[in-house]
Amino acid sequence: MSVLVVGSIALDTVKTPVEEHTDQLCGSASYAAVGASFFSPVQLVGVVGDDFPEAEFEFWKSRKIDASGVQRVRGKTFRWSGEYAWDLNTHETRSVALNVFENFQPKLPEDFRKAEFVLLANIAPSLQSHVLDQVCRPRFVVADTMDLWIETTRKDLDALLPRIDLLILNDSEAREMTKDTSLIRAGRSIRRMGPKYVAVKKGEHGALLFGPDDFFSCGAYPLEDIHDPTGAGDTFAGGLAGYLAGQESEEVDFAQLRRAVIFGSVLASFNVEAFSLNRLRRLTMEEIEERYKMFRVMSQFEVLP
Amino acid sequence: MSVLVVGSIALDTVKTPVEEHTDQLCGSASYAAVGASFFSPVQLVGVVGDDFPEAEFEFWKSRKIDASGVQRVRGKTFRWSGEYAWDLNTHETRSVALNVFENFQPKLPEDFRKAEFVLLANIAPSLQSHVLDQVCRPRFVVADTMDLWIETTRKDLDALLPRIDLLILNDSEAREMTKDTSLIRAGRSIRRMGPKYVAVKKGEHGALLFGPDDFFSCGAYPLEDIHDPTGAGDTFAGGLAGYLAGQESEEVDFAQLRRAVIFGSVLASFNVEAFSLNRLRRLTMEEIEERYKMFRVMSQFEVLP
Repeated sequence: MSVLVVGSIALDTVKTPVEEHTDQLCGSASYAAVGASFFSPVQLVGVVGDDFPEAEFEFWKSRKIDASGVQRVRGKTFRWSGEYAWDLNTHETRSVALNVFENFQPKLPEDFRKAEFVLLANIAPSLQSHVLDQVCRPRFVVADTMDLWIETTRKDLDALLPRIDLLILNDSEAREMTKDTSLIRAGRSIRRMGPKYVAVKKGEHGALLFGPDDFFSCGAYPLEDIHDPTGAGDTFAGGLAGYLAGQESEEVDFAQLRRAVIFGSVLASFNVEAFSLNRLRRLTMEEIEERYKMFRVMSQFEVLP
Repeated sequence: MSVLVVGSIALDTVKTPVEEHTDQLCGSASYAAVGASFFSPVQLVGVVGDDFPEAEFEFWKSRKIDASGVQRVRGKTFRWSGEYAWDLNTHETRSVALNVFENFQPKLPEDFRKAEFVLLANIAPSLQSHVLDQVCRPRFVVADTMDLWIETTRKDLDALLPRIDLLILNDSEAREMTKDTSLIRAGRSIRRMGPKYVAVKKGEHGALLFGPDDFFSCGAYPLEDIHDPTGAGDTFAGGLAGYLAGQESEEVDFAQLRRAVIFGSVLASFNVEAFSLNRLRRLTMEEIEERYKMFRVMSQFEVLP
C-alpha cells in the first residue's frame, strides 16, 4: 500500500556551531516522504518554485516517490534559515521566506484521492484538513503538528483532531497543548480530543505511544554525535507512517504501531547524522534493520523466573 | 546475601503545592535501606539523635534491616525542609540543620565489615570512602552521588570512583560532571573515570545503564500523579542494589543489572505515590512483581519477521 504525504518542501540554510549549509532540501514533506519510502511507495503533495533543483525530482523517482502531486509554480521555493545553539537542542530562526508556499492550496491528483494511508506532515492544520477533504476514504491518518499551530491556529487543529487516527507531537508541545506538566496525563488527554493514538517525541529520551488500552515507551538510539537535528521529527513521522502502509494486514493494531515507532526512531537517528537528507540518501535497508535489532538489544530485560 | 547501606537518616519537612508533612522519616539511607529490603537483608549504617522515634527502629526490624550500625547520639536528628514547585520537578530548600549528622563518622560493627554488597547512598564522597576503608573485601559496590558533591568535593568524588563498580547519578549531574551536553557521551566518559557501570536516572524519562560492552535504556512507569518526589533516586538505588545482593550467582552480569535497573525504577515509582516512606511501608512483593511485568509490556516490541 502506498502512503500519501503532504507537507512543506523547502530549501533551508542551517548553521550549527560546526558547519553551515545553504539551500539544502528540507521541509516536513521532504523528510517524511523519504523516510516513508523505505517501507512503501509514496505519493507526494507539495509546492516548489521554478528555482527548485530538477535533480530532486530524479531523486524522488529513484525512491519510488510519485511527485505528480508536487506543484511547480512561478516564484521562489519556501526558504528557512536558522542557527542551532552549541547543544543542538535549541535554535534561532534567522529568516523565513514563504515564497510560493504562501498561497499553497494542496490539490490532489485524481489517483491520489484513493489513498488509504495518509501522512499529514507538519503544515498548518487548515491545509491538513483541506487535504483530508479530498481523500475519498482514508483508512489510517497520521498528522504531525508543532507549537506554532497550537499557539496560533488552535481552532483549526482542534477541528482536525477527530478526523485523524494518530497525532504526533513533541513533549513540550504535548504539555503546552494540555497545560499539564505530566506527560502521561497530557498524552491521555490529547487522545480524548480525537485521535485514537498519540505519539509523543522526546528527542534524546525516545518516544511514548498512547492507545485506548495500551502504552508503549522506547528510548532513543544512543548517538554520540548529532550533526543536524533538522527534520528528525518529520523523518520519524515518515518512517512510522511508511512502515504502517507497508504492512499487509487489514487493521492497524498496537503491536504494529510499536514497531512503527521503533522504525520511525531508527530513521530519525540516521537523519541527524548528517545535514539535510544527506544521510537518508545513502541509507540502506540493511542498516535500518541492524539498528532496529540494536533497539531491541538495548531495551530488553528478562521475565521474572 | 545482605547489602550494607550507608547514608543519611533525616526527619524532613516537605511541602508540595497540595500537602505539607513535618518531621517525616527521610534521608538517603532510609529510602535506600527500605528499597533494598524487599530483595535482601540489609545492614544499615547511619546516625540519629535522641529525638529519633523509637518506632522507626521497630519498623526496620520488621523489614529485616539490621540497625546495629545506626549510632544514636545526643542531640537532634538531621533535618531538611523544602518546598516543591507546582510541577514537582524543582524544589527550594527552606532550611537544613545537620545536627548530629555534622560530625558523623561511619563506624561499621565488626560483622558489617564482611559485607560483599555495599550501597553507598548519597552522602559526602569522603564518608563513602571512609566506609569502604572498613569493608574487608567488597564484591560489588554501588555509589549514589549528587550535584552538591560534584560542585564542592570533586576531588573526593574522583578518588572514590575507581573503588566502586556502579555509579548512580541523574542526567543533569552526568552532564555537569563531564561538561558534555550529550548524555551518551557523558555516561561513557564517567565510566572512564573508574566505575565499570554507570546508571543515569532521568526522572519521568526513565534510566540509562552503561557497561563495558553494553547499553540499556528503559522508560519510567507511566504515573499520572506524583505526590512527593523526595527519595525517588535513593529508593531506585536501594531497589537496584538490594536486587543484586539477593541473587545467588557469583558474578554480577549485565542481564542482572538490567533487571536491577527495572526493579529500582519500580520501587521509585511506588515511592513517589505518597509522602516520606509511606507507600513503601505498605508495599507488597506482589505489587512489585506486577509493576515489573507492566514495565515489560510497555517496552516490548516484536523482532522483525
